[in-house]
This record gives sequence, C-alpha cells and structure tokens, in this order.
Amino acid sequence: VPDEELGRRERRKLEARVRLLAATRQMIAEQGATDLKIADIAKAADVGFGTFYNHFESKDAIVEAVLGEVLAGAATAIGSFALEFADPAETASFSYRRFVLFAREEPELAAVLIKLPGANELFEESLRTYARETLERGRQSGRFEIEDLELALATVIAAGFAAIKGVLQGRLGEHADVIGAEMMLRFFGLDHAEAREISHRPLPSLDLARPTFADSPT
Amino acid sequence: VPDEELGRRERRKLEARVRLLAATRQMIAEQGATDLKIADIAKAADVGFGTFYNHFESKDAIVEAVLGEVLAGAATAIGSFALEFADPAETASFSYRRFVLFAREEPELAAVLIKLPGANELFEESLRTYARETLERGRQSGRFEIEDLELALATVIAAGFAAIKGVLQGRLGEHADVIGAEMMLRFFGLDHAEAREISHRPLPSLDLARPTFADSPT
Repeated sequence: VPDEELGRRERRKLEARVRLLAATRQMIAEQGATDLKIADIAKAADVGFGTFYNHFESKDAIVEAVLGEVLAGAATAIGSFALEFADPAETASFSYRRFVLFAREEPELAAVLIKLPGANELFEESLRTYARETLERGRQSGRFEIEDLELALATVIAAGFAAIKGVLQGRLGEHADVIGAEMMLRFFGLDHAEAREISHRPLPSLDLARPTFADSPT
Repeated sequence: VPDEELGRRERRKLEARVRLLAATRQMIAEQGATDLKIADIAKAADVGFGTFYNHFESKDAIVEAVLGEVLAGAATAIGSFALEFADPAETASFSYRRFVLFAREEPELAAVLIKLPGANELFEESLRTYARETLERGRQSGRFEIEDLELALATVIAAGFAAIKGVLQGRLGEHADVIGAEMMLRFFGLDHAEAREISHRPLPSLDLARPTFADSPT
C-alpha cells in the first residue's frame, strides 16, 4: 500500500533526524562543538555520511538546531513547572535560578549556546512565552509593579542570559542564582525582606538532564 | 629633514583615517549601513579608493571601527558627566536614561550597532569602566545593596542594551528610559519612593551629537 510505504519512509527519515540531533547533543555536552566532525556525528547516529546532508546543510546548522531544541526543552520544563507556583514571585525566582544553574550543570552546551551567532535571539525566543505569562500574572495580581511589560520582559531575559554568561566565564560567585533572583524580585517591586526570603528558598528539584527532542518518536 | 618628513606623512595618514571615519559615521547616521559603498565613503572623505584599503580592510571593518568610536565617545561623555553627581543612584539613573535616549536620537547608528556581530561585547566593553565605578561607589557608600558586583554589572549592562534594542524595535513605551531607571534603582536596593523620585527628575542636557573621533587631529 503506497500510503503505508510513504509513512514508513517518512518515519525512518524522522528517526534518522532525531538520532542525528541526539548524537550531536551528547557530543557537544561531552566535548563542546569545536572539534565536532560531521563524519563522527553520522557514525554515532548510525546514518550514512551522505544522509546527514538530507537533514542539515552544515555542522553549524545541526549545532544551532540542537541548541534550539535544548533551550526550548529547558524552557518548557522549567516554565511549566514554575507556573504551578501560586505566587508569581516564586515562579520568577525559580525560573531564573534554574536557568542560571543550567549553565553550571551543562557547561559545554551552555558555552556553545553563548557563542552561537544569534544566541541572544534564540534565548529570548525560547523564554518569551513563559516569562511573559509570569510577568502578566504578577502584574494583574498586583504582586509586581511593572509599568512597561515589554521593557521588563526584555530586561529580565537579557539579565538571565548575562548571568549564564557570567557563570560560564567564571566571573560570578557561588550563589549568583540566589543573589540574582533577589535583585530581580526587587526590580519587580517586592520589598527587600520578601525578595530575600523568596529567593533563598530551597530549590525544588527538576531534572533537566538529557531531555528528549521535541519530535522524538515514542 | 627626514624626521619632519615622516611626521608630515604620518599626520597626513592619520588625517585621512579620521576623515574616513567621520564620513562613514555621518553616512550611517543618515542612511544606515546597508547601502554604504566604499567608493562613496572614499569620495566623501576626499581620499582615493585605494587609500581606503591602507586604513581598513573592508566596509564591515570601518563600520565596526565607527561604532566602537561612537560608543566609546558616548560612554566617556555620559560616564564622566554622570560621575559628577554626588549620589550614585543619580549617576546610574542619568547614565541609563541617557543611553536609552541615544537610541531615539541616533536611530540609524543604534540600529547598525545592535546588528553588528559582537554588538553585546562592544557595548559591554565601552560601558564597563564607568558602570563599575558607579556600582562600587554605591556599594561602598551603602547606597546600593549589591552582593555580587560582577553579577550586578553584567545585569545592568545587558539591561541597558536590551532597552536600546526594544526602543529601536518600537516595542517600548515613550517613557521607557524613566521606567527602566526606576526599576534599576529598585534592583540596586533603593525603596520604591526614592527610586521613583530620582528616576523622574528632569534630565540635565548633554549634547552627544557628532562627537569628534578620539584620534582627531586638532
């Protein structure tokens, strides 16, 4: 049956793509992207060298795709977990801290991310939806004092990205996630005592290691 | 006299370079960098087409040099003016607002800046010295409550850059400079009332239009 045949072919193609992405992700996490070779990716993914080019036009293209997927996965995992908190201040604090800690947990991936051309835009794109929802809830409930939502949104996303960079460059202290969250809550209008208390809460655990790729067949 | 001869030749070379930079700056300010042609720059600067390449290896190279000089010039003008305020909170508020307004006053230059590869780094480099001095003064005097200076520094510089971007993209409201400064002062630990009052003060005028280039012969 031609329909089935097509389905099978399409599925095989998708599986190859997912294996290529997963292999690249793992190789970047272990050794960075500098010495990454397409031949090695293809081998690790168990696809032919030529097949690689059916899916991605270059090494840079697959690296960018991986980072896009990793960021989108992390944003979804962190964002959807964080939006369960009743208090938008806790949502914001948790999300900020979790992203900063991601740089410590996955330094190779994070290092490749910050060096990507368009890294800022990629980071912003991935986080925008969750961050906006958090700020809107905070504003509507009167918890945050925010006059220009777009400005606050652009600022906190840029602040998160700057903190990740600072962590990777080894420029920040050990508790940068907590200290940054505290300052961010003050930025949103919380008073000192509350900003301090909320940012210093123990962080609920959330496993971000090795998220599956969005289009992974199950 | 050979020494004099050399001096004259060096001086002529420097003058050509300065004219090239000044012409490029003006052309970018008027029409952006997209349609900029080396031949037109050379003509406007009154130097030969070939001479251009004694100074810059490409159009991108001169554009980056111009933006570097413009940013360094603006940072020096804003920073040295702002550090005259006795209160570091006022220094910070003035500097932030002045940079955000720069994006409104010189939209073409700012637009070229944010599109440069490495724009973030260039921006950070230009502002770092003045911003650090401001934060250190605020911390030492007890005016700011900052636990991790590097984090606060990286955050405010990123915040300033994000605000400039937001202005250029037309996403921010008319008073983004004031609102952003107010949030930033809260971020530094000022209470609501003071952050509001200081950020809403009338802005002393400071003319940034057409700064001369650093190495301009007088």
